[in-house]
Amino acid sequence: MADDYIPPKVWTWAQPSGGAFASINRPIAGATHDRELPVGQHPLQLYSLATPNGVKVTILLEELLDAGHRADYDAWLIDINKGDQFGSGFVAVNPNSKIPALMDRATSQRVFESASIMLYLAEKFGGAFIPRDPGRRTEMFSWLFWQMGSAPFVGGGFGHFYAYAPTKQEYPINRYAMETKRQLDVLNQHLAVHEWMAGEYSLADIAIYAWYGNLVLGRAYNAAEFLDVASYTHVLAWAQRIDARPAVIRGRKVNRTWGEPQEQLPERHSAADFT
Amino acid sequence: MADDYIPPKVWTWAQPSGGAFASINRPIAGATHDRELPVGQHPLQLYSLATPNGVKVTILLEELLDAGHRADYDAWLIDINKGDQFGSGFVAVNPNSKIPALMDRATSQRVFESASIMLYLAEKFGGAFIPRDPGRRTEMFSWLFWQMGSAPFVGGGFGHFYAYAPTKQEYPINRYAMETKRQLDVLNQHLAVHEWMAGEYSLADIAIYAWYGNLVLGRAYNAAEFLDVASYTHVLAWAQRIDARPAVIRGRKVNRTWGEPQEQLPERHSAADFT
Repeated sequence: MADDYIPPKVWTWAQPSGGAFASINRPIAGATHDRELPVGQHPLQLYSLATPNGVKVTILLEELLDAGHRADYDAWLIDINKGDQFGSGFVAVNPNSKIPALMDRATSQRVFESASIMLYLAEKFGGAFIPRDPGRRTEMFSWLFWQMGSAPFVGGGFGHFYAYAPTKQEYPINRYAMETKRQLDVLNQHLAVHEWMAGEYSLADIAIYAWYGNLVLGRAYNAAEFLDVASYTHVLAWAQRIDARPAVIRGRKVNRTWGEPQEQLPERHSAADFT
Repeated sequence: MADDYIPPKVWTWAQPSGGAFASINRPIAGATHDRELPVGQHPLQLYSLATPNGVKVTILLEELLDAGHRADYDAWLIDINKGDQFGSGFVAVNPNSKIPALMDRATSQRVFESASIMLYLAEKFGGAFIPRDPGRRTEMFSWLFWQMGSAPFVGGGFGHFYAYAPTKQEYPINRYAMETKRQLDVLNQHLAVHEWMAGEYSLADIAIYAWYGNLVLGRAYNAAEFLDVASYTHVLAWAQRIDARPAVIRGRKVNRTWGEPQEQLPERHSAADFT
């Protein structure tokens, strides 16, 4: 892994180079094995894991329920380290083999990509958590797309090289630490003068909280000190407000298989599962 | 840049480590200098550059014009190597300091993030290029968000380490080449059995073409052979169909300052500018 490397003319698939999650990276798409997905009693069937992208959707579903919508759902665990995302049933719902994925049995609709699932659910329930004011609505979408286009530099970039790669490599760690800090500062400057990302609590707050709230609350990559997350005071205050919401507390537990026992709810099929 | 690097307790901003575009990366957000943006005669003022994210919007605007919508616009050049994106006027439109950014003088609305601008324009003109069928609409959004969440691994990952970083580093090149090929295969398997990404030519096709069409047409990072892009035959056929559209040919020229002279139109203020 020297940096005077000369790439070959044509890239070829070698054995995994090590590090956490290396075995789930592949250069080809599609199913590796036949496996049907389980189906529960509700119209909404979620196949997920409590990563930042996963909790975006479970938090929204719990918020929809708290707001009085009939958003009850079954949440099934997809164990990405066991390759569940490469089963034929999952690939049919999400050809990209990433969690979360949603099947709405009421409409026979598949939905993939966390923000697309959020938008689908919000629209299904009357535009909940999407601002009605046109200006706020547009601002909400700018920040929602910002989250989707920015977080890969945090998760697939910084988190990978700081926490998961087989060796500590200075250049990539530096590159992605700088970008992660820049993104945190973008948020910090915005939240210094705005209570919420787009004028009211919305999909954008939930999506950004899932990634950047996680960071400033010191829950990601054991990197709170390295990134000096405490210096982003406005992001932290906003994240703490969101973190205290009952729907957020519940949503974070769904499809979670790590942490303290009381933080884990590997599968969720009814409101009673939380008690 | 050894890979037995031991990160410091707290990351600090050192001098740029070299490579193309290193000088425009910063760990802090906000304006570095006062500079107003120019304003032309049309309601829609675009501030951009003909990168993949930039051409998504100019292609859509030209498609809207070809479809008979009153989408005439001024497109102003943002030279990111000169730091135009850090001027106070630009930051007020896009606090994230990335192109493209749009100001709609008709509604005094700022819009940032390429896909958010696409959605804003499509909705402004009656939902053009958003499928009316609910199933296709949902699928369109899944693929549009897929593009936003996936392309950072191509541009900020593969392109950076293969073409722009100061040295060739095996681990990051391998990591991002594998993911770029996986994404191309996701598209290839989909386009093997679908003419368009979501049932009809839509925002998703334009957004994905801008990144992945560029790749398979051999226009990105001098990496066509390395990634064996010719093997993604269904992506290539789809990209060639899009590439031949008159609006696409025009849109690719707008805010472009490289390539052959006849491919460049650094600023666009009326349809006559193309002749």
